[in-house]
Amino acid sequence: MAIAMLSDLNHGQEADIFVLMTAKEELTTRDGKPYFRVGFRDSVREVSFPIWSDSPWGVDCREAWQPGLFYKVRAIYRDTSYGPQLELRKIREVCTADSADGFSPALCLPQTRFDAKLMFEELLATAEERIGDAGLRGLVVRILEQHREALLTLPAATHNHHAFIGGWLEHVLSVTRTCVHLADKYDEYYPEMQPRLNKGLVVAGAILHDIGKLREIEQRAQGAEYTAAGNLIGHILQGRDIVREAAVGLEVDSEILLRLEHVIVAHQRLPEWGSPKPPMTPEALIVHYADDLDAKYQMMSAILRDDTNAGVVTSRKNALHQKIFRGGDSAE
Amino acid sequence: MAIAMLSDLNHGQEADIFVLMTAKEELTTRDGKPYFRVGFRDSVREVSFPIWSDSPWGVDCREAWQPGLFYKVRAIYRDTSYGPQLELRKIREVCTADSADGFSPALCLPQTRFDAKLMFEELLATAEERIGDAGLRGLVVRILEQHREALLTLPAATHNHHAFIGGWLEHVLSVTRTCVHLADKYDEYYPEMQPRLNKGLVVAGAILHDIGKLREIEQRAQGAEYTAAGNLIGHILQGRDIVREAAVGLEVDSEILLRLEHVIVAHQRLPEWGSPKPPMTPEALIVHYADDLDAKYQMMSAILRDDTNAGVVTSRKNALHQKIFRGGDSAE
Amino acid sequence: MAIAMLSDLNHGQEADIFVLMTAKEELTTRDGKPYFRVGFRDSVREVSFPIWSDSPWGVDCREAWQPGLFYKVRAIYRDTSYGPQLELRKIREVCTADSADGFSPALCLPQTRFDAKLMFEELLATAEERIGDAGLRGLVVRILEQHREALLTLPAATHNHHAFIGGWLEHVLSVTRTCVHLADKYDEYYPEMQPRLNKGLVVAGAILHDIGKLREIEQRAQGAEYTAAGNLIGHILQGRDIVREAAVGLEVDSEILLRLEHVIVAHQRLPEWGSPKPPMTPEALIVHYADDLDAKYQMMSAILRDDTNAGVVTSRKNALHQKIFRGGDSAE
Amino acid sequence: MAIAMLSDLNHGQEADIFVLMTAKEELTTRDGKPYFRVGFRDSVREVSFPIWSDSPWGVDCREAWQPGLFYKVRAIYRDTSYGPQLELRKIREVCTADSADGFSPALCLPQTRFDAKLMFEELLATAEERIGDAGLRGLVVRILEQHREALLTLPAATHNHHAFIGGWLEHVLSVTRTCVHLADKYDEYYPEMQPRLNKGLVVAGAILHDIGKLREIEQRAQGAEYTAAGNLIGHILQGRDIVREAAVGLEVDSEILLRLEHVIVAHQRLPEWGSPKPPMTPEALIVHYADDLDAKYQMMSAILRDDTNAGVVTSRKNALHQKIFRGGDSAE
Amino acid sequence: MAIAMLSDLNHGQEADIFVLMTAKEELTTRDGKPYFRVGFRDSVREVSFPIWSDSPWGVDCREAWQPGLFYKVRAIYRDTSYGPQLELRKIREVCTADSADGFSPALCLPQTRFDAKLMFEELLATAEERIGDAGLRGLVVRILEQHREALLTLPAATHNHHAFIGGWLEHVLSVTRTCVHLADKYDEYYPEMQPRLNKGLVVAGAILHDIGKLREIEQRAQGAEYTAAGNLIGHILQGRDIVREAAVGLEVDSEILLRLEHVIVAHQRLPEWGSPKPPMTPEALIVHYADDLDAKYQMMSAILRDDTNAGVVTSRKNALHQKIFRGGDSAE
Amino acid sequence: MAIAMLSDLNHGQEADIFVLMTAKEELTTRDGKPYFRVGFRDSVREVSFPIWSDSPWGVDCREAWQPGLFYKVRAIYRDTSYGPQLELRKIREVCTADSADGFSPALCLPQTRFDAKLMFEELLATAEERIGDAGLRGLVVRILEQHREALLTLPAATHNHHAFIGGWLEHVLSVTRTCVHLADKYDEYYPEMQPRLNKGLVVAGAILHDIGKLREIEQRAQGAEYTAAGNLIGHILQGRDIVREAAVGLEVDSEILLRLEHVIVAHQRLPEWGSPKPPMTPEALIVHYADDLDAKYQMMSAILRDDTNAGVVTSRKNALHQKIFRGGDSAE
Repeated sequence: MAIAMLSDLNHGQEADIFVLMTAKEELTTRDGKPYFRVGFRDSVREVSFPIWSDSPWGVDCREAWQPGLFYKVRAIYRDTSYGPQLELRKIREVCTADSADGFSPALCLPQTRFDAKLMFEELLATAEERIGDAGLRGLVVRILEQHREALLTLPAATHNHHAFIGGWLEHVLSVTRTCVHLADKYDEYYPEMQPRLNKGLVVAGAILHDIGKLREIEQRAQGAEYTAAGNLIGHILQGRDIVREAAVGLEVDSEILLRLEHVIVAHQRLPEWGSPKPPMTPEALIVHYADDLDAKYQMMSAILRDDTNAGVVTSRKNALHQKIFRGGDSAE
Repeated sequence: MAIAMLSDLNHGQEADIFVLMTAKEELTTRDGKPYFRVGFRDSVREVSFPIWSDSPWGVDCREAWQPGLFYKVRAIYRDTSYGPQLELRKIREVCTADSADGFSPALCLPQTRFDAKLMFEELLATAEERIGDAGLRGLVVRILEQHREALLTLPAATHNHHAFIGGWLEHVLSVTRTCVHLADKYDEYYPEMQPRLNKGLVVAGAILHDIGKLREIEQRAQGAEYTAAGNLIGHILQGRDIVREAAVGLEVDSEILLRLEHVIVAHQRLPEWGSPKPPMTPEALIVHYADDLDAKYQMMSAILRDDTNAGVVTSRKNALHQKIFRGGDSAE
Repeated sequence: MAIAMLSDLNHGQEADIFVLMTAKEELTTRDGKPYFRVGFRDSVREVSFPIWSDSPWGVDCREAWQPGLFYKVRAIYRDTSYGPQLELRKIREVCTADSADGFSPALCLPQTRFDAKLMFEELLATAEERIGDAGLRGLVVRILEQHREALLTLPAATHNHHAFIGGWLEHVLSVTRTCVHLADKYDEYYPEMQPRLNKGLVVAGAILHDIGKLREIEQRAQGAEYTAAGNLIGHILQGRDIVREAAVGLEVDSEILLRLEHVIVAHQRLPEWGSPKPPMTPEALIVHYADDLDAKYQMMSAILRDDTNAGVVTSRKNALHQKIFRGGDSAE
Repeated sequence: MAIAMLSDLNHGQEADIFVLMTAKEELTTRDGKPYFRVGFRDSVREVSFPIWSDSPWGVDCREAWQPGLFYKVRAIYRDTSYGPQLELRKIREVCTADSADGFSPALCLPQTRFDAKLMFEELLATAEERIGDAGLRGLVVRILEQHREALLTLPAATHNHHAFIGGWLEHVLSVTRTCVHLADKYDEYYPEMQPRLNKGLVVAGAILHDIGKLREIEQRAQGAEYTAAGNLIGHILQGRDIVREAAVGLEVDSEILLRLEHVIVAHQRLPEWGSPKPPMTPEALIVHYADDLDAKYQMMSAILRDDTNAGVVTSRKNALHQKIFRGGDSAE
Repeated sequence: MAIAMLSDLNHGQEADIFVLMTAKEELTTRDGKPYFRVGFRDSVREVSFPIWSDSPWGVDCREAWQPGLFYKVRAIYRDTSYGPQLELRKIREVCTADSADGFSPALCLPQTRFDAKLMFEELLATAEERIGDAGLRGLVVRILEQHREALLTLPAATHNHHAFIGGWLEHVLSVTRTCVHLADKYDEYYPEMQPRLNKGLVVAGAILHDIGKLREIEQRAQGAEYTAAGNLIGHILQGRDIVREAAVGLEVDSEILLRLEHVIVAHQRLPEWGSPKPPMTPEALIVHYADDLDAKYQMMSAILRDDTNAGVVTSRKNALHQKIFRGGDSAE
Repeated sequence: MAIAMLSDLNHGQEADIFVLMTAKEELTTRDGKPYFRVGFRDSVREVSFPIWSDSPWGVDCREAWQPGLFYKVRAIYRDTSYGPQLELRKIREVCTADSADGFSPALCLPQTRFDAKLMFEELLATAEERIGDAGLRGLVVRILEQHREALLTLPAATHNHHAFIGGWLEHVLSVTRTCVHLADKYDEYYPEMQPRLNKGLVVAGAILHDIGKLREIEQRAQGAEYTAAGNLIGHILQGRDIVREAAVGLEVDSEILLRLEHVIVAHQRLPEWGSPKPPMTPEALIVHYADDLDAKYQMMSAILRDDTNAGVVTSRKNALHQKIFRGGDSAE
């Protein structure tokens, strides 16, 4: 049977698919019947359905299946009023040979639509071209290179915006591109400002503003989660740590380093959003706005994509806590 | 004697200058001595000093001088602990012949550093090139052309950001440029968004977001002031009025018009900043961020220029109600 | 069989009733059994219950019944722990001949307890008697007459206060009556105020403060909903539009018109409640208080009527988000 | 010389006047010259001016004059840029014989425009006619009669609204009148409410909502001040104390008494305004709105009377912390 | 069969237990099957499970069992995915003879881990030793003694902190101990403060700060609930009442009494937490902090005990509305 | 002439004193007379008065005197309505020989009433005795010893609480003592808490919670000021830096270190007070409360000491932004 993507299946279609098991929870119905609620996903679609303990799969489910492992499954896909479900025909753990059929873990996790390596290269190139100060440039490049592997897959958050594999790169590159534009523009507008806008610092701040996510969140099969230090300290302070640790042994001007730390510390702007200090420099101001817009725009875009409310507006239950206009009816 | 600019004079220098009288207030010292506090300005510097009633200029000041009129003055300029002052030698109202010596009212009011006509032309050209929908484009062009004269000099505010002649154009053009960039960028990022980003609407919204300032503020010699309707209704609602009135008789798609109105209504984002609705469309979101950054950046730049506090940071008494970092000492 | 009102039926009673279908939703039980959840209502009571797909009514329900249509139904009424339900015996769509048996659509929707036409006439009469300025009076009368039909049934809101047919009239008339009293009273108290209280303007503001609901909400069988413009712009701005549009061609003093617009704009007082400006005139202040009290009083009254909590206070889950005291136990 | 009112004098006019001394402060000019700043007032106008220590009045001022005493003064009145002032010709303390010339302390303190005794009688009559429950009526009447003397002069506040002699009566009577109207109206609107609106309780609550001012503030020559208990406990709790103390020995239904206490406790509605509980009964809701409107209306009226700002709006520095529209210019 | 504690039973164990019935609610399943949901508890564990109407216990449950009564039950205990449940074998109401088997109502309600009488004695002793002023000491002792019986069992709240039998004593004693320490300490630190810290007043305030709970809450089998007066007035005001009433006839210095009332009134510090006045004396400041810490510490401790979230932190759904760190993983 | 303390001088007394010059500002009177405003202080009293340019001291003042230097002055002290002033008779810079007469810089700056060295020793001893974990104890001791010299004089703030020499030690020792008490107490109360309270961590957190002040503020003759990094980053983050840097090379358990960092990060509790995270551990909760009370108590004590308002309460213009009760009049 041909191998398909779970997310491509139509109602009633049977196929072989590669999926990641994301959940297995032991439950009982109201009248005492025991079952497992299991979850499987590929990069786009997630299904969740019951395995009754006394059904043919009951024993395997209890004894063998484990969340976090990848499976090859033959199943019939159905859209139901409880959401998408699978009727299992066969199931076994993925094996090495499956690579030949196209299996790769990346097929089973939500991820950026862009090529992570290209994004990384562009970020690195931007640092090298746009940061004039040698010390600062060296610092940014060192951090990027040290964490290359992790950054290629890091999400930007556990929920909310860019919460998928490669989300950090997608978000940070977007913010950096906007910052390159804004830095050029505002330096041209206010050439007499004292001290003059440090365009390289804007770029460095854009690249590193969320670098603390490396320590704040941890990727697991079930999705990203906060680390202990992420909970107790938070990515804003952890990002500044990474910068300060990387600066040891490099020749970075102390005021420039301080200003870079401030961009990171202030990038959420409001204390209730996690920034102990508001933007007190033009560089921090620009990075804040570019970052905030990018996050909000991604969320609004995702809400428009996912909301199932009928009518001209979405529901208010979403990451932005407000209705988004979908359009259609323009009657007054 | 050579004609100079008030703002170019050094301590102790005597010169002929063209100035606008901005204030004349009758006062008495604590021990009962009557005097006038008068103000004069050119486009950059403002001076304020006493004319004692029993001094040679006392009678003229009381009977003849009027705030809002332009004067040719010969005076000695002094920096004092009370700020810049003038010791008058001669003073007469400006006459037609003074044009030959270079007088123009624009010399005496604070204004944009850019060429207003060029900015206006760029704004118009942007509308024509970037707004694909004919009805919407026609609407924007009509409004710009109808109000050309007023827009060439309109400030963007009475206080706070861009509060000078041509400030509206400087601010709006800057916001529009940013919006052109962001609209291109985000449309490319999220091509599958439903409905797709209306890039022309972003540009139209950028151009018109503050158009209500035409009715909210009024220029006077003493500076811009709020009109009655500006106080009771506010520029957000008044700007929407201008758009709706101009749309009468034009073929503008009703949903596009509604979305444009929403961009204006929502551009301050928070109710306490005057927006009865938050941005509910991607277009409104982009315009809000571009606008907010531009206003804050201009304020921060002006604070860095004007603050006289000693030390590494400015005072907290400024338009942003926070300290701005000036730099210098990077000691930890 | 005698025709009865759904809201008059007792547990176990069988009768013929006229009802509006308000909902039909296709669902599946946890163990996969398909059914429809349907809703029917008369003006006071709403019932919601399942129609199993394999029951006698399953096919008709799926294929024929439609929310928004009126039905003649024979059924047995039951109070259950799931709320009121119907056991259907017969069902057919209402036909012309049913009028002879007393059917009218108004029987099936929640509505004001008062006579809408009498309320409208009183409102109109109040405008004519209490607004001294001819231009202002003409404006108010024109608006009322132009929208007579819609205003006779318009609710005052989609949820919260006065959310039923005729709710706008009930609320607005109540506010207007209060305003007549308060305007007389405060003008007598502060006869020397400059400018003197414009009593006619208070009345005009009371009548028109919520006129924007005409454009903000739309009535459907399932209840009132926000229009696209209602979502993006809101009734405060839309109400001002109606006034400005109606004023075209009438001789209304420009300051009086501006003050009337301000009453509408400011009537919610706080920005987070939708008013971009706070009341800045005595007229706006009076209308705000009369309106706010009327809305809150209706909500408190409805909470006391509907809350099913045991004990001396209601639950906190209601339109006022607080407990209301019901009384009974006065122990300290 | 004819005896005049200080508040009737014109610039330059000389007259004999009766005044209260409100202030005497010993100061020194910047260059060391000692003087006293003294204040005198009648019921409408207050003047404040220096008495130089080495002037003819210097010794008397230092040794004899006392704030809080009444004086007969012959003086020339002048409007100056420092505000209204007096040039003293004669000054002596008021004596018994001055009554024959019309002196009375009430001439020298700001006070209500209405007749305090008539207001008190109306309040009492309203209690007797409008409170049906004998126990409640007896309670209200007892409190009014016990405190008759103090209530005839009590101000409603030390600053803000109704901060003058008789202000309590003026404010409370106005609130009570409004409440009589609203109680009749809303009882008629919602006759089926359970429990039904207690109209007598609304009236009792209106009369007693601010009764705690009796203990919160204290009248002195210099104006009303907070007592120790007023500072530490506040009039809301103190008013409830008065009610509870007066109820001892009377036959008041315990639930009615509790509801009356709640009206007092909740009458400011918000915790930050001093109410530990929000209005949880219809009676408390009505009293809150009637009270709040009355206070705000008096403030707005006083701002319009006192503000000296030029232009269409008042300054923002006033008891309402916002601009009030004065009108005139209605240009858009 | 041996008598055991419900809270000591293991999955599958059968035993005789004494329990309190806490709930009996008549319900119907989605498909119309009627049943009762019943609850039973001992001091530590609560179980809730269905009794089907057609099961052997159906009739007894409907007709005889009553929440609030104590039962002797033989049952098999089970941990299920719906939480702990009982399979009943026998059930009868507790009778006098059961005391011989160790039954006491206290076995069936959640309560303090400490000995209530000892706590009460310590509180009384502290008052007698630590309050120097005879009048104040007499007042505190009188109140404690008058309410001895009630205080031995009073909870400190209906939810949140110390919401169990004896919770008031546990909390108040803990606050008082902290206050004894802090009063000694700060008096030693600031011996020159004017007026000097009144250490006895700190202790009196600590003991009485929550005395109003006596009137605010009422104990029932189902748990503590707010009284009518508790809802409408609140324990802060009610506590002050108790103090004022007890002071009648005692020789308490009026300023000391006022300061004690203030400690009670201000002990929550913020208006939104119920205090109409913030701490305005050092005594009130100390009591506030000792109280607030004790409540928060008890909540945090209970959250750590009860939260079932996996991972390094608890859920955010708890009395503190925030995540609490449980520890374990310290990876950065 | 005997050498006295400035702060001991009475009105009119002449003496030799040692003082620090704190200010020299060049000014001009309104009518153009130039002068210097100079300030001098000892540890308790500060005086500020004019030196006229044309007076005997004019030239010396302009050319020689420098803020930040110490002077021996002979002068007559006067209390005036402008505050305390000096009439200079002699003035010269302090020289080495003055030590013999008792001069020491510490005489001229506001400072703690306690012996700094003793406080430091107690802090160190507490760390050694109370912190059981060797790694943690070593960390705390290392930090204290490394910064011994600076900590002996560091103030706790530039304004607000403990803003004087040795203020850091005074505040931190007080907080630590309270924490020792509370940690013992709460560990005894909740011995079963999981994980159990780490008492040593509470003590370590108390000692180090404000250690970042070392980098946030800088002492100058004119008083403490914020450093650049203090402005841009803040003491909470800087304190955590100091701890992390000191931990390098020490054997500190990683979870204990993380929890210690969290105590520092969370010690202000609210984001708007500078803490990006709220207390999420019992240790952080205790340190927060002990710290907050100590700061507020010191402020309240200082307000009671310094406020000059007449009446029963202080002014509201103080570090706590509220009135403090001073007492005296207890009239209701």
